[in-house]
Amino acid sequence: MEIHYVSPLFPPLLHVPAVLFFPSDRRSSHGLPRPLILEYDRAAVYELDEEVKLFCDSWRLSVEANNINPWKTVPEECGAYVKDYMMGRAYSADLDRVSIEAGEYAKNVELASDGRDAWIFDIDETLLSNLPYYADHGFGSVEFDPKKFDEWVDEAAAPAIQPSLKLYNEVMDLGFKVFLLTGRSEKQRAVTVENLINAGFQNWDELILRAPGDQGKHAVVYKSEKREEMAKEGYRILGNSGDQWSDLLGSSMSSRSFKLPNPMYYIL
Amino acid sequence: MEIHYVSPLFPPLLHVPAVLFFPSDRRSSHGLPRPLILEYDRAAVYELDEEVKLFCDSWRLSVEANNINPWKTVPEECGAYVKDYMMGRAYSADLDRVSIEAGEYAKNVELASDGRDAWIFDIDETLLSNLPYYADHGFGSVEFDPKKFDEWVDEAAAPAIQPSLKLYNEVMDLGFKVFLLTGRSEKQRAVTVENLINAGFQNWDELILRAPGDQGKHAVVYKSEKREEMAKEGYRILGNSGDQWSDLLGSSMSSRSFKLPNPMYYIL
Repeated sequence: MEIHYVSPLFPPLLHVPAVLFFPSDRRSSHGLPRPLILEYDRAAVYELDEEVKLFCDSWRLSVEANNINPWKTVPEECGAYVKDYMMGRAYSADLDRVSIEAGEYAKNVELASDGRDAWIFDIDETLLSNLPYYADHGFGSVEFDPKKFDEWVDEAAAPAIQPSLKLYNEVMDLGFKVFLLTGRSEKQRAVTVENLINAGFQNWDELILRAPGDQGKHAVVYKSEKREEMAKEGYRILGNSGDQWSDLLGSSMSSRSFKLPNPMYYIL
Repeated sequence: MEIHYVSPLFPPLLHVPAVLFFPSDRRSSHGLPRPLILEYDRAAVYELDEEVKLFCDSWRLSVEANNINPWKTVPEECGAYVKDYMMGRAYSADLDRVSIEAGEYAKNVELASDGRDAWIFDIDETLLSNLPYYADHGFGSVEFDPKKFDEWVDEAAAPAIQPSLKLYNEVMDLGFKVFLLTGRSEKQRAVTVENLINAGFQNWDELILRAPGDQGKHAVVYKSEKREEMAKEGYRILGNSGDQWSDLLGSSMSSRSFKLPNPMYYIL
């Protein structure tokens, strides 16, 4: 418990009973004309919050910079933090920033006239948001349940990530070939198309899902193989947007990669 | 300007003249027994701070995730933000987190017994901190001055980044060959060695600086070439620590890369 003596010119009165402002109380035990403020409760709560925030900020930064991998669930102490991040303005602002930077790059990169300049988009947490699902499942603080998640996918109800829809339309208008490269299974093609259309995505050139032979491959291997195939077909992969580093790293990497934020889950 | 009516139980008194607490003033124009608090100044500052923080948080995240590149200086509105970050606890916490994650990986990766397992460290803002220099030069908010910076380098006075010194000693003890790969010039070898030793770094296997033929190369090219040479000599690059993406990306990439935070400058 700390006792704070503060200047009577700027008395921080929150939680302080008014009686402290009567002249008779404006003397400390040292006889100085200052109010005695007991604010240990507020200080304790504040410090706990600050420590957790400091820890979780560092954890999230390390996730986004690919320093922590693999990881299974959000650290227990960061459950509320990740929820706040996802539901508050920061996640939206971060999505906006990535979309703006990718759009600036797309506008300024030189395209050939042969129609072989390509942009790749991942789907989940890149074009479509599963936030409604994760809001009901602990925002990544409980272990991933593939069965329940597939049921959610079958609803075809995931909303668009608006800044990504904006980028999607921009690169489409600029003349890029747009490839959608997802870890979803070929069995989910129909619901995925339905969901994408419902969310406003149109006219992609190819939607690539995991074929039976791709099941069990690490995402980074599967996605690298698919990029290699594109390169062999003569495509120049100029941009790649994904929320997982396994969307972006590996072989036949894109000239520029754009990492969308995702502190809820990690895909190996 | 907004006028706030607040409960007399918790009067936020900062900057509010004491006269407002006399009973005669504790009625609003609606006749309610509440003090009238004019706090537009504080609210405006608070909102500006929140907006700036939101913007600069997103900017910094995008820098660390390599979404913004290249960039020349810290955005004007983020000057104070970056200073606060670098001088406060967040930068230290972020450095700690990277060091801890890298150390965990180093301990758990399997080393062969042939002495060819390698860890690469960049120097500036990775092993040595130039924060004393940048504190005198706007924390990245003014354009880089190579002449002044070289004068600072010649002082050999850069302190160790302590979490990196810890990691350095850990990987050394585990039996990694340690390569220091820096964009500094071969001319700066003597002062660089002096500075590293003064800061507590010892027993590295090789210190690689830019030879005359490397001048003018982009960092990512120069560093990729040096990693290729290591690979040709039979080294397996298992870890790579750097504060720039140009330390980590390119060819002959390390099995795992560790991106240290640096919102002050970008090296192409």
